Amino acid sequence: MSGVRNMEDYGLFLALLGSALLVGFVSVVFSLVWVFNYREGLGWDGGSAEFNWHPVLIVTGFVFIQGIAIIVYRLPWTWKCSKLLMKFIHAGLNTIAMILAIVSMVAVFDYHNARSIPNMYSLHSWIGLTAVIFYSLQLFLGFAIFLLPFAPVPLRAALMPIHVYSGLLIFVAVIASALMGITEKLLFALNSTVYSTSPPEAIFVNCLGLLIVIFGALILWMASRPHWKRPAEENAKVQRPKGGAPEGTEAESTMTDGSNADKSDVGFNSEAARKRNFKLDEAGQRSTM
Amino acid sequence: MSGVRNMEDYGLFLALLGSALLVGFVSVVFSLVWVFNYREGLGWDGGSAEFNWHPVLIVTGFVFIQGIAIIVYRLPWTWKCSKLLMKFIHAGLNTIAMILAIVSMVAVFDYHNARSIPNMYSLHSWIGLTAVIFYSLQLFLGFAIFLLPFAPVPLRAALMPIHVYSGLLIFVAVIASALMGITEKLLFALNSTVYSTSPPEAIFVNCLGLLIVIFGALILWMASRPHWKRPAEENAKVQRPKGGAPEGTEAESTMTDGSNADKSDVGFNSEAARKRNFKLDEAGQRSTM
Repeated sequence: MSGVRNMEDYGLFLALLGSALLVGFVSVVFSLVWVFNYREGLGWDGGSAEFNWHPVLIVTGFVFIQGIAIIVYRLPWTWKCSKLLMKFIHAGLNTIAMILAIVSMVAVFDYHNARSIPNMYSLHSWIGLTAVIFYSLQLFLGFAIFLLPFAPVPLRAALMPIHVYSGLLIFVAVIASALMGITEKLLFALNSTVYSTSPPEAIFVNCLGLLIVIFGALILWMASRPHWKRPAEENAKVQRPKGGAPEGTEAESTMTDGSNADKSDVGFNSEAARKRNFKLDEAGQRSTM
Repeated sequence: MSGVRNMEDYGLFLALLGSALLVGFVSVVFSLVWVFNYREGLGWDGGSAEFNWHPVLIVTGFVFIQGIAIIVYRLPWTWKCSKLLMKFIHAGLNTIAMILAIVSMVAVFDYHNARSIPNMYSLHSWIGLTAVIFYSLQLFLGFAIFLLPFAPVPLRAALMPIHVYSGLLIFVAVIASALMGITEKLLFALNSTVYSTSPPEAIFVNCLGLLIVIFGALILWMASRPHWKRPAEENAKVQRPKGGAPEGTEAESTMTDGSNADKSDVGFNSEAARKRNFKLDEAGQRSTM
């Protein structure tokens, strides 16, 4: 690939990243305008203002921050940073998103209990709670397997494609759940007759739903282009001690597509061959991202 | 990869395929039980029985049949069939799904108009109609570019990753829209007070929503494993005339992962090199599926 092609591609990546940041940020602003302009604002009193933390924190944490956490390895200016640092940032952003999601659920349970409204009866609540549980599990397993230095390399290699797939699936499920939540809230707050007359609040919040879908589509596109992956060579340069053995994180930190693996990097001893096989095998799987 | 590994992998594929078919089929049955057991059945009279075609046809066509259409290239026993035949099956299933989706929308518009209920006010309707429009566009462009023999190979190669991404994105958007539709219909039919007491219909239809999510997750997993792709060699064997030039469908029909491309298949003339570069370039992109 020529340098020009790479530069064009870099420009496209930046344009998409800029669009995602803008759309994500505008979504957060929309959620705030919704609760402050059309609803009762924010509070922690068991009333509607407490409920309103739910959409605001879900859009901020579970949609926007989770989306950024997903593509954080793709930012080209981070490729000179160690993979370990990037893992901490990935895990840290996901931890913030999880905390915000949990606080946002507490707000709803509090609100329901204060008004004697049953909990967990709607499809939105079933899928939303399932997403939070799987998200927490994903974060715990990701920390235990990919951040702590105990998991053996073959286990990491085998689990990485599952980690990637389940991460993206949870992200999509969170967005679907947010759209159901918007539908529910508009029908509760406006009732179906008023909603069907398309008052300004309905149009405005429908647009929030569309913004969330566009944000999700941008993140999924960026996350699923194999040629925008963090390159293995840069990483290996930083992490691998000169002539030393690869560290525990090697398998997933150096894995790359077979198609862009450095073909000149062919080892002839069995250890090198084993590692190379890992790379290729992993590549076949991780390229599903 | 050893034969044993391949056989295990084949068993896993069959198990997932069987699960997807079962879950998809049960979803269709659930949609029928919903409308016949809990609602007014099916009819075409402008009343609720006409509306009920909407969930039944969406679950049958836009979820189940679309899901099968997505993974039809992955069925190992079709790898001996020509790629062209498989394209016709892929396009045919998607056409059936599109027709059912359009009829299901006509049912809703008819029902709304008969009762003077406004159309297109809800987020569900916005995202659902957008999905139908993009799905139709995707089908038209797919037919024009990948089935008809006119599009040049570089264009096909450049557009295939977009075709794959947008196909999966539309599938996910359809499922999200179906979940919003379930939420809406339960709130309209039961009203929020009754829904919150979790009557049998609410539990049953929430379970339909979960089944649709599980079906979607199974299809996305099968569609995104690169090692379950239709292999290039089998295909080339069938399609390429002995020693003849590749036909128009060559680029995308022989594309494969760089990682599992036959390394011994190295041509030394420029034509072979050009083709190989396509394969690798494509591979990097198509492996995003």
